[in-house]
Amino acid sequence: MKLIRFGAEGQEKPGVQLDNGSRIDISAFGQDFDENFFGNDGIKKLGKWLKSNQPNCPLVDENIRLGAPMTRPSKIVCVGLNYAQHAAESGMAVPEHPVLFFKSTTAIVGPFDDIIIPKGSTKTDWEVELSIVIGKKASYVNEADAFDHIAGYVLHNDVSERAFQLELSGQWVKGKSCDTFAPIGPFIATTDEIKNPNNLNLWLKLNGEMMQNSSTSDFIFNVQHVVSHISQFMTLLPGDIISTGTPFGVGLGLTPPLYLKAGDVVELGIEGLGTSKQHVKAYE
Amino acid sequence: MKLIRFGAEGQEKPGVQLDNGSRIDISAFGQDFDENFFGNDGIKKLGKWLKSNQPNCPLVDENIRLGAPMTRPSKIVCVGLNYAQHAAESGMAVPEHPVLFFKSTTAIVGPFDDIIIPKGSTKTDWEVELSIVIGKKASYVNEADAFDHIAGYVLHNDVSERAFQLELSGQWVKGKSCDTFAPIGPFIATTDEIKNPNNLNLWLKLNGEMMQNSSTSDFIFNVQHVVSHISQFMTLLPGDIISTGTPFGVGLGLTPPLYLKAGDVVELGIEGLGTSKQHVKAYE
Repeated sequence: MKLIRFGAEGQEKPGVQLDNGSRIDISAFGQDFDENFFGNDGIKKLGKWLKSNQPNCPLVDENIRLGAPMTRPSKIVCVGLNYAQHAAESGMAVPEHPVLFFKSTTAIVGPFDDIIIPKGSTKTDWEVELSIVIGKKASYVNEADAFDHIAGYVLHNDVSERAFQLELSGQWVKGKSCDTFAPIGPFIATTDEIKNPNNLNLWLKLNGEMMQNSSTSDFIFNVQHVVSHISQFMTLLPGDIISTGTPFGVGLGLTPPLYLKAGDVVELGIEGLGTSKQHVKAYE
Repeated sequence: MKLIRFGAEGQEKPGVQLDNGSRIDISAFGQDFDENFFGNDGIKKLGKWLKSNQPNCPLVDENIRLGAPMTRPSKIVCVGLNYAQHAAESGMAVPEHPVLFFKSTTAIVGPFDDIIIPKGSTKTDWEVELSIVIGKKASYVNEADAFDHIAGYVLHNDVSERAFQLELSGQWVKGKSCDTFAPIGPFIATTDEIKNPNNLNLWLKLNGEMMQNSSTSDFIFNVQHVVSHISQFMTLLPGDIISTGTPFGVGLGLTPPLYLKAGDVVELGIEGLGTSKQHVKAYE
């Protein structure tokens, strides 16, 4: 199943994208895609509900804005340097354990919303990432059980300001949390749709030119390792997002480095998870 | 006003601690201490409501558990190395800008709840901290306007696992986010109660022995600087918590270092913000 949320910012309603690409409004199901939904078998219940109610669900006009396909999660946990070639382009060593940092949930926007370059920014960069959506509270989970705690997967542009991240007295969260720095979507693909999350092509284009083009098969730490590792240090709640790191090809790694400017267009995609597109604007 | 929440874990109700120390149940006011409360003049409305309704509010038995005095915030932003002598004991330079990191909100517990030493921990440490509760959405706020965005202040033990924080491939969040690592309370003191947050004595005792004893007048970056600085990099929402850093005297800084073990008792306090006490237990 492909879960979407649609409508004006802050007023999104839940929906489902069908296999033929059309979108339906499932407001009548009575639950949004939140902690309670993911943590209480909402996906299974929705699937069952759709069997009898799908014909009565209104179609969503294709011009209606898509929001991020989940309500505000309790946290976004990101994995840094999870592709060897990206660690190298960042001038950093391949880590022995997953590097973790958080991203403020206030950064979340829809998959086709604008990226706003923050005040004082000179180094706003792109990062296509596979994100995991947690489906079941996870604390001290083994790798073997990790997949039981996953609800689905979603496309994420982990937008990053490199000066804020690396040149302002430390801890990356400072360069990861600006408003609009987390375009998420178009949809959450539930786990049944993704045969192997550790073998998905992912790519990102800047103004039509391919900048990142890789596969999650190049992960240093795969999906089950990441979920298990994080759960040793904190409790993951249903609906929480884990972003698994970006492959080679960010602006920071180019010679000379290249950063986003107003007017740029970023497009990205992951096999089975659709595509997203953001226009870059200056802060006004 | 002193805002409290009381009752069993996950079922807390809002209350107020009166000047005589007794506590009253304000459930009849109809709002918990959440983003909506702080962001919509809840403190002022509650003060007004109490003028006519206080006599009808039930007393809270003094044996009833206190929870953290706010519902789950969207984030906990922490400032690292914000006292010069603590930076020195940590073997780190005084930072040019505030060092920021996040703490998972799943770490929040009540002020008298147990601290559970996580699995695999050998270096669980204490940190008494003054925390700020945001009262108004803050983005690109000047220092001069920072106090307008603060709802109140609260005592926080920023419990930290030093091996997780410093020896596991980077980014401090890993050592800050374990369950029970954020005992918060006993109460939020609204801003009218705290004349100058940048001049408050704060202390922490381990098994009755004074380990930390300092004043927020030793801040490298004061309250208004911290709020303004963070708001340059992310939007702060009503109810969000900013923890302002810990003074000299943590276990990491002792020779030899000293860490928490099952059976220990930690007590801490800040002038005007009450005291809290946690028993340390092993994970079972």
